[in-house]
Amino acid sequence: MKKSLGAKTIIYLTPVLAVGTYDKSGKANVMTAAWAGICCSAPPCIGVSLRKATYTYGNIMERKAFTISVPSEDQVKQADYFGMVSGRDVDKFSAAGLTPVKSELVDAPYVEEFPLVLECRLLNAVEIGLHTQFIGEIMDVKAEAEFLGDDGLPDIEKVRPIIFAPEGRSYHGVGKYLGKAFSIGKRN
Amino acid sequence: MKKSLGAKTIIYLTPVLAVGTYDKSGKANVMTAAWAGICCSAPPCIGVSLRKATYTYGNIMERKAFTISVPSEDQVKQADYFGMVSGRDVDKFSAAGLTPVKSELVDAPYVEEFPLVLECRLLNAVEIGLHTQFIGEIMDVKAEAEFLGDDGLPDIEKVRPIIFAPEGRSYHGVGKYLGKAFSIGKRN
Repeated sequence: MKKSLGAKTIIYLTPVLAVGTYDKSGKANVMTAAWAGICCSAPPCIGVSLRKATYTYGNIMERKAFTISVPSEDQVKQADYFGMVSGRDVDKFSAAGLTPVKSELVDAPYVEEFPLVLECRLLNAVEIGLHTQFIGEIMDVKAEAEFLGDDGLPDIEKVRPIIFAPEGRSYHGVGKYLGKAFSIGKRN
Repeated sequence: MKKSLGAKTIIYLTPVLAVGTYDKSGKANVMTAAWAGICCSAPPCIGVSLRKATYTYGNIMERKAFTISVPSEDQVKQADYFGMVSGRDVDKFSAAGLTPVKSELVDAPYVEEFPLVLECRLLNAVEIGLHTQFIGEIMDVKAEAEFLGDDGLPDIEKVRPIIFAPEGRSYHGVGKYLGKAFSIGKRN
């Protein structure tokens, strides 16, 4: 028998992603988002939801572009910091000792030190409520060679991304390998 | 120096969620989705992207409702199975030995044996490309008491949800606790 917990944004699990943008003056900014996920395979798209009050919101509207940088678990402090202060008040890259790199393909910076990045051009802004969802077409994925597996793709056990657990507001690492998708359920 | 991997749907990390619906005849169906995430805090909403070809797509369009059931890592085989066959051909609940329970609040069934469920009413269907994103307002979250922590909220270390790593197509469990969000980055 399940217990009712009310209408809450609890889903397991959500990612920890750093959204990179430039402001009007060209200053690089970055903020953390967990209300995000892949939302289309073709074109490849990611949806990231932000409040209008964020500095990043205006930057995306202005530049029609953003990046996503995926932090590794040993960068959890920087990732958390990026979600607590506003780019209106602080140069977050500088304060965190991290380096903004201009994307090759879109008008936005990514975090050099984070292992995996996506360069996105804004396709659509969907008004939902408190949050606006930015749908970005993924123009390229880039990763450091040391985080790739033998198949040339990123290896999640090398990238070691961070899980965010909503409501409880805790961060967790990636655990043990459970099996191959589209495979282990075959002899269900 | 980062290496370009092309325009792919790689983001770490994505969830493993079972989307529950009724078809026209009232048969319960369930399919696995990883292209999903929270997309608004108020109203609390989740976005789930599905291809038009899926049986679930038609069911949501018809019933304007769906549920999300979050499997635990020891249910990874059932979760994988739900993503490999179509409800057009099979009664997936019956084949997997799992139980559909009619949601109290919306016209859709959830998976009784999965630890955490969301009941959602359809707010919007956003056409993106191959995928359509269904934005569902979360009307209630329900969980088994044994998966709650002392604070009355679900405990991710008890629920033990599953991570899906795109492209490499592997499943992973939740790992070690890394810290408190909106806190550990303070002394960055």
